[in-house]
Amino acid sequence: MPGERYPTPEAAEAAFYEAFEKRDIEAMMSVWADDGIVCVHPMGPRIDGRREVAQSWADIFEGGVALRFEPTDVGSTHSDAIAVHCVHEDISFGPGFRQRTRVIATNVYRRTEDGWRMIVHHASPVDDSEGEDEDDDGGGRQFLH
Amino acid sequence: MPGERYPTPEAAEAAFYEAFEKRDIEAMMSVWADDGIVCVHPMGPRIDGRREVAQSWADIFEGGVALRFEPTDVGSTHSDAIAVHCVHEDISFGPGFRQRTRVIATNVYRRTEDGWRMIVHHASPVDDSEGEDEDDDGGGRQFLH
Repeated sequence: MPGERYPTPEAAEAAFYEAFEKRDIEAMMSVWADDGIVCVHPMGPRIDGRREVAQSWADIFEGGVALRFEPTDVGSTHSDAIAVHCVHEDISFGPGFRQRTRVIATNVYRRTEDGWRMIVHHASPVDDSEGEDEDDDGGGRQFLH
Repeated sequence: MPGERYPTPEAAEAAFYEAFEKRDIEAMMSVWADDGIVCVHPMGPRIDGRREVAQSWADIFEGGVALRFEPTDVGSTHSDAIAVHCVHEDISFGPGFRQRTRVIATNVYRRTEDGWRMIVHHASPVDDSEGEDEDDDGGGRQFLH
């Protein structure tokens, strides 16, 4: 669908979040590049490869939770061929979309013959608890890094 | 320290993990670019700006936990000006470095007048529990995304 591809990284990013909200697997995968792609869902493993990434989105969309995304605080760095966006995904869900959470995402786009397409989506949750983490017996990860 | 700057993204990445293991804040910050930088520690918020990023590393290094890093499965995409590495950080720690954990990192480097320097480090934990997450009452984040 060359006509639907994206003239800028921003257009690709808008299409990504629109496909996510619509739970539209075809639209989602038209945002992603054909190869060399990596996807990390919050708390999830690294997923490499187009087939595996598509399956992960199909699984999420099948879960059937309706989400609204408001990407905020977008920080970006562009070159001629690669664009990197760091985004706060402010997500609304649940009855009346009144519940809110925040996910941090790094989205990377590459300029291809078909326009700009996503090559990396790395999303991670934010631990809202502000407590000191003094656990040094190896149980926690937060203190490590 | 122009003489210590990095001719390739790979050299910058090696210096990053070496500084991390040595808990050397000066070496760490010589890897990072002067501006436009973003750092996300596992479960942490997005940290923007050189002073704030430096403080976050100083806090981590003060924690005093000795770590050994083995970056594996490096997937990378380069352009003339930006390089993106997706890395499994296999981390050893504790007595005799016998405890192990894995963190997923997306590391982005930019070519500057001083060579390649880090502009993004986004690290996230992997939830090893393989259980089904059927919680749909809004309590968890995993089901969202």
